[in-house]
Amino acid sequence: MSRVKQGTAGRRVSFQGELGAFSQIAARELGGSDAIPVPLPTFQEVFESVANGKCEAAVIPIENTLHGSIHDNYDHLLRFDLAIRGETFVRIVHNLIAKPGVRLRDIVRIYSHPVALNQCLHFLDSNPKCERTPFYDTAGSVKMVMEEGMTDAGAIASAAAAEIYGATILKKSIEDDRANYTRFFLLELPRKNRNKPAGAVSKCKTSVVFTVKNVPGALFRCLSAFALRDLNMTKIESRPLRGKPWEYLFYLDFMGHVDEPASRNALNHLAELADMLRVLGCYPAAR
Amino acid sequence: MSRVKQGTAGRRVSFQGELGAFSQIAARELGGSDAIPVPLPTFQEVFESVANGKCEAAVIPIENTLHGSIHDNYDHLLRFDLAIRGETFVRIVHNLIAKPGVRLRDIVRIYSHPVALNQCLHFLDSNPKCERTPFYDTAGSVKMVMEEGMTDAGAIASAAAAEIYGATILKKSIEDDRANYTRFFLLELPRKNRNKPAGAVSKCKTSVVFTVKNVPGALFRCLSAFALRDLNMTKIESRPLRGKPWEYLFYLDFMGHVDEPASRNALNHLAELADMLRVLGCYPAAR
Repeated sequence: MSRVKQGTAGRRVSFQGELGAFSQIAARELGGSDAIPVPLPTFQEVFESVANGKCEAAVIPIENTLHGSIHDNYDHLLRFDLAIRGETFVRIVHNLIAKPGVRLRDIVRIYSHPVALNQCLHFLDSNPKCERTPFYDTAGSVKMVMEEGMTDAGAIASAAAAEIYGATILKKSIEDDRANYTRFFLLELPRKNRNKPAGAVSKCKTSVVFTVKNVPGALFRCLSAFALRDLNMTKIESRPLRGKPWEYLFYLDFMGHVDEPASRNALNHLAELADMLRVLGCYPAAR
Repeated sequence: MSRVKQGTAGRRVSFQGELGAFSQIAARELGGSDAIPVPLPTFQEVFESVANGKCEAAVIPIENTLHGSIHDNYDHLLRFDLAIRGETFVRIVHNLIAKPGVRLRDIVRIYSHPVALNQCLHFLDSNPKCERTPFYDTAGSVKMVMEEGMTDAGAIASAAAAEIYGATILKKSIEDDRANYTRFFLLELPRKNRNKPAGAVSKCKTSVVFTVKNVPGALFRCLSAFALRDLNMTKIESRPLRGKPWEYLFYLDFMGHVDEPASRNALNHLAELADMLRVLGCYPAAR
């Protein structure tokens, strides 16, 4: 991580959502505490902000332990030519947040993103007088409750959102399932001299996307490039291949650094077997 | 398919959406033309309708060539103990539909599901005076336009929806990309004596779900059960494993019949390698 943080003062790091979104927590971890957060409405605009040079980096969620992959972002990774430069896991902790002075018994409405409301059913069921009100964003619901000065409403969002908008946390960690983590990627423009992480080679991860020849056993042979070299594959994700019904793109992550012989040989082997292969990035593995 | 259609008169077949939904077209193909269509609001209710015996069968979409897998339904396949008994591919053809007598030049608003509107951008861009109005369902938008007797609005939906609600097709096949297919499954209660398709063994597909031991090369070894027997894997999908962050369930389809020696041996081999294995169904392959 030390490499990423060097000379990043004033770096603009974009993310999807409002200030205080879980993506901003990830942006702080990956982009450095002195990075300037740039909230944008859509994932597409986040990718564009780096591609067109308006931001130096972007932070995007790629998968969640309860909901699975964020497929739009897998598709954007292929469409935009950006490099994955870091990853982090953020535990999703939901809090009941309100205007300072407001007590739990005052609250008759609770705003949040539908996914967040759905992850706090235990708490909501035990507080039946609070009406569940879907809103477009978790942090955005705190912003709205504060801007409108609501004294009978609360919001479910991150502790960071409470801090940013000057709100109070009435109840911490009201989510049903604590094994709720989101994995985020740090993206930058690919640059020849900066595409390899300087961290310990043994603790790096590499992400690739490839297509296989449409013959039996093709994926098995592609995975052999890693298995035969004892490289640990940590994730595989399939996405439909546009224009070729029932054929797929595969996104694969493995523990390894592109400069290690085993990883380099595996990638050469995979290039030989695959129809298309692109290295999306090599970065220090989280944890 | 002949087996599925035998003795199915009056069978209730549930699907998600309104009458005229693309799922109903699949339900007609898979459940027989004499099946009674039972539209339900959510996928969960569709699975429940078979589990609790209110319907004899259900038809669910599982993947689309442009959008990818319908992950909710993969999750439901694991949660409910139903058997996959058939599959079909439906080409998604979108049509501009209106009340009889209404002409294209009369239309100032077009209703449809946001995904359908998004798949007809070419047509919508060339008709800029028509406002794009998102609605909860494709067939539901035809139903609404007809019920309200709208003379200045159209809907984008299937030809079946136009027929069911007595509407007219103003323009056929207005979708941007014709390689737009959805794969549907026919689901029934698993029954000992009816779990094996009677069709040609060589044209059957088997679907399984499994988890792998958390060691390097585990997925590769699991796939070897198929590759070493020249069994053609047609799809693999990963989903997060609840309670075990960054571990995954794998859903896999392969060409083969559970009664063939190669398939039977592959499944025994996979059972030996996997932590958990369940056969979701064996059914005649579409096309």
